[in-house]
Amino acid sequence: MHDAPYYRLQSRFAEIGRLDEIRGILDWDQATQMPRGGSVARGEQLKTLAQMRHRLLSEPAVGDWLDEATELALEPWRLANVRAMRHMYLHAATVPSALIGALTYSASLTEHTWREAREENDFALVAPALGELLALVREEAAHKAEALGVTPYEALMDRYDPGRGWPEIERLFGQLSPKLSLMVERACEGAAVPPPLPCPVEVQRGICEAVLQALGFDWEHGRLDESAHPFTGGVPDDVRITTRYAEEDLLPALFATIHEAGHAQYERGLPETWRGQPVGQAPGLTMHESQSLGFEMQIARSPAFSGFLARLIAERLGHPTETVRSVLARRLAHVQRTLIRVEADELTYPLHILLRTELERALVSGDLEVADLPEAWRDASARHVGIAPENDRSGCLQDIHWYSGDFGYFPTYALGAMVAAQLVAAARAALPNLDRSLAQGDWSDYLAWCRAHVHALGSRYSADELVSQATGRPLGVESYLAHLEARYLARSAG
Amino acid sequence: MHDAPYYRLQSRFAEIGRLDEIRGILDWDQATQMPRGGSVARGEQLKTLAQMRHRLLSEPAVGDWLDEATELALEPWRLANVRAMRHMYLHAATVPSALIGALTYSASLTEHTWREAREENDFALVAPALGELLALVREEAAHKAEALGVTPYEALMDRYDPGRGWPEIERLFGQLSPKLSLMVERACEGAAVPPPLPCPVEVQRGICEAVLQALGFDWEHGRLDESAHPFTGGVPDDVRITTRYAEEDLLPALFATIHEAGHAQYERGLPETWRGQPVGQAPGLTMHESQSLGFEMQIARSPAFSGFLARLIAERLGHPTETVRSVLARRLAHVQRTLIRVEADELTYPLHILLRTELERALVSGDLEVADLPEAWRDASARHVGIAPENDRSGCLQDIHWYSGDFGYFPTYALGAMVAAQLVAAARAALPNLDRSLAQGDWSDYLAWCRAHVHALGSRYSADELVSQATGRPLGVESYLAHLEARYLARSAG
Repeated sequence: MHDAPYYRLQSRFAEIGRLDEIRGILDWDQATQMPRGGSVARGEQLKTLAQMRHRLLSEPAVGDWLDEATELALEPWRLANVRAMRHMYLHAATVPSALIGALTYSASLTEHTWREAREENDFALVAPALGELLALVREEAAHKAEALGVTPYEALMDRYDPGRGWPEIERLFGQLSPKLSLMVERACEGAAVPPPLPCPVEVQRGICEAVLQALGFDWEHGRLDESAHPFTGGVPDDVRITTRYAEEDLLPALFATIHEAGHAQYERGLPETWRGQPVGQAPGLTMHESQSLGFEMQIARSPAFSGFLARLIAERLGHPTETVRSVLARRLAHVQRTLIRVEADELTYPLHILLRTELERALVSGDLEVADLPEAWRDASARHVGIAPENDRSGCLQDIHWYSGDFGYFPTYALGAMVAAQLVAAARAALPNLDRSLAQGDWSDYLAWCRAHVHALGSRYSADELVSQATGRPLGVESYLAHLEARYLARSAG
Repeated sequence: MHDAPYYRLQSRFAEIGRLDEIRGILDWDQATQMPRGGSVARGEQLKTLAQMRHRLLSEPAVGDWLDEATELALEPWRLANVRAMRHMYLHAATVPSALIGALTYSASLTEHTWREAREENDFALVAPALGELLALVREEAAHKAEALGVTPYEALMDRYDPGRGWPEIERLFGQLSPKLSLMVERACEGAAVPPPLPCPVEVQRGICEAVLQALGFDWEHGRLDESAHPFTGGVPDDVRITTRYAEEDLLPALFATIHEAGHAQYERGLPETWRGQPVGQAPGLTMHESQSLGFEMQIARSPAFSGFLARLIAERLGHPTETVRSVLARRLAHVQRTLIRVEADELTYPLHILLRTELERALVSGDLEVADLPEAWRDASARHVGIAPENDRSGCLQDIHWYSGDFGYFPTYALGAMVAAQLVAAARAALPNLDRSLAQGDWSDYLAWCRAHVHALGSRYSADELVSQATGRPLGVESYLAHLEARYLARSAG
């Protein structure tokens, strides 16, 4: 058959896709259900799965089929599938097996040591392990850079955000940084810390479920559970989100649920006809984060929907609506320079990303060595965030990413926020009655827009192509800055 | 290396073992957690896993290594491992792939149709599908019989109970049948149906957890959940049991939990040094059932432990202990001829197995055809159980086994009960203070005995060898009949 190489690839990647789905269920189980004593056996199961996946993916025949398939006159979606396959293949096959083994082992050891180092606030404890891991990551980056024809840092980023080049990030972050600094300066003026919203866990669970209902969450194909760190797992037809409840305050659990629901709806809305194929998946983490942040930051915190939220919370807690509305408005508008990324508000959050992007690029290039990281962090934190940590636990020890070998991941958080703002601006232009629906707790119009312009397209187009097609222009900082200005500096907007 | 073929096998079967563990977790998830809409994707995941397992297991090289390894001067446990590997290999590799595919498809279709036929009480609905499935099963049996050098029915049984021959079953069942009939006749005389023990679900859950504690269940390495049909899943280091609660009566959920705990403790006690290898697993379903029935029927219903149970239940329900003790004693001693196997009491239960064994043997040999099954069932039920069903839903449509392609499975239930009785008699002889401990809710002596004589030996010995070594004589019906006599006919024993 003329198209045989393509169909060989399609059947091979269907198998790989199923293994990835299985890993998704096992990871979810590990975080939500598994008794502690199961961890060693689970580690072995995941290792076997990873080895099988690597064997299926990096076999030389796959490379040959890819070369042959590229020459075929395939339909556009099949060509996009081949492109997505090649992306997976390159990231698996261009790194020698021995190096992959060394990376896996070193990352696992470093992550383990990092937990202790963070607990003890003792960077020296993990520095040697991180140094060895970084040396391996630099080797990995060199291999991938050669195969992809890009710089080592771009080669690492490519795994999380296929095709993203450094010049684009440099331009976007360069435009963002000075304006953001000024906005933060203005927004922080004399803001008092607003109070928490205590709420029994059972009531929180009920509120989260009611909100998921409003967001169109499909309980026939999904679950909500609890885990130490909220995440979205499972597979598109069985998508599982988690949150974490704390009695002292409702809002962290509520907005984590909404954030994960954004990821979940993306997975759920991926094109059914391409299930299990690379083209049927999201084109990287920037697009994925644009959906979760679109849900959490853009839509859920909009004055229209937060009015609905205030009524719902007030009813469930038996408080006067006006009291809840006022607390919620103050909480959602509050801006403060803080040290911990995951606790940062929407406006200061990207500053944490600018800091990390600068440092990880220097670590990968060799301009910065591990021994100098704590000092470099304090310096960069003062420049970007405007305050510097007094200890490493609130500094370079706070995030897991580098210690588990993930370099080049951080930019996707800020890029995702930019994409979210630009997409939502386009959705608002196309849906003039959106705020009226949101005020009634009805997300169906917004969800339908996301389905049509993002979810249902899978990886048929790259992230940048998706954004251009959905919004009529390439990704820029304008919508994002306009959104932040309206949300945090035009106080009357709520 | 001289022993190379053996080590190649060991590493290959370690991989297969991990795939089986993963399937164990996915099956558990499907029965307890998965939203309904996830079933199609889950089916595909399980299919991929099964294909990979089959590829790894039935590769011709595995057959060569097995032949070479058999010639090596290996340690006894390694020889036992090779024997257990060969068992797995033969059952995978002697059946042509096309036939395996046809069997899987036909079994899935027949099982699906069976659910409807049972619901509608309409055997004709599923008869054509069952006929096709049976034809395929006969083919499968012929292939395996040739490879194993046994009869077709023995070849099917061998999958569930390795090495068990028909002459042994014929002898044991032949000795059992007439004596059992007489005992049932005597025990059923004028027995009034005792009342249920209603109990709120939350209290039932608490009682089940407390009883699991008494049974030495290890919560660091296990869970208790709910599912439509109780089962034991997961893996030895993460063993997961389920039960099913109904407010109207505590006892079904309680004894299902104890039954599954017997399976769970077997898995948990399998030899750690052989984890993931075939020799590290139980030598078949008869031995497995001996542990669950040993827990449920022999120990938990003993007068000593049921006294403890009565106190625990009375305390949790706030009832007088004597009331609960009396209800429990009457419930546990009640014998009645009924139509549904899974609801039968201990004494009449084996009659249901005699009936099924006779019929499935005739179905496999061709002496009985599907069209004649309902009539043959009514006839055999009258002869074995002493009553005949008026409809097929309470007759040949009640059990899933044949409709999912499982022929040769039923005997293990009755054999397991015999093994349980013989093992517990030996344990009692070795542990003169057992009843004193059980009366205090302390199972540790009994569990230690099971660990030493059964669990920790994995498949180092065959089921029959295990029984002979643990009890000093080959498997017979004497202990079983003595137990039934004491439990159901010497009424004063409780």
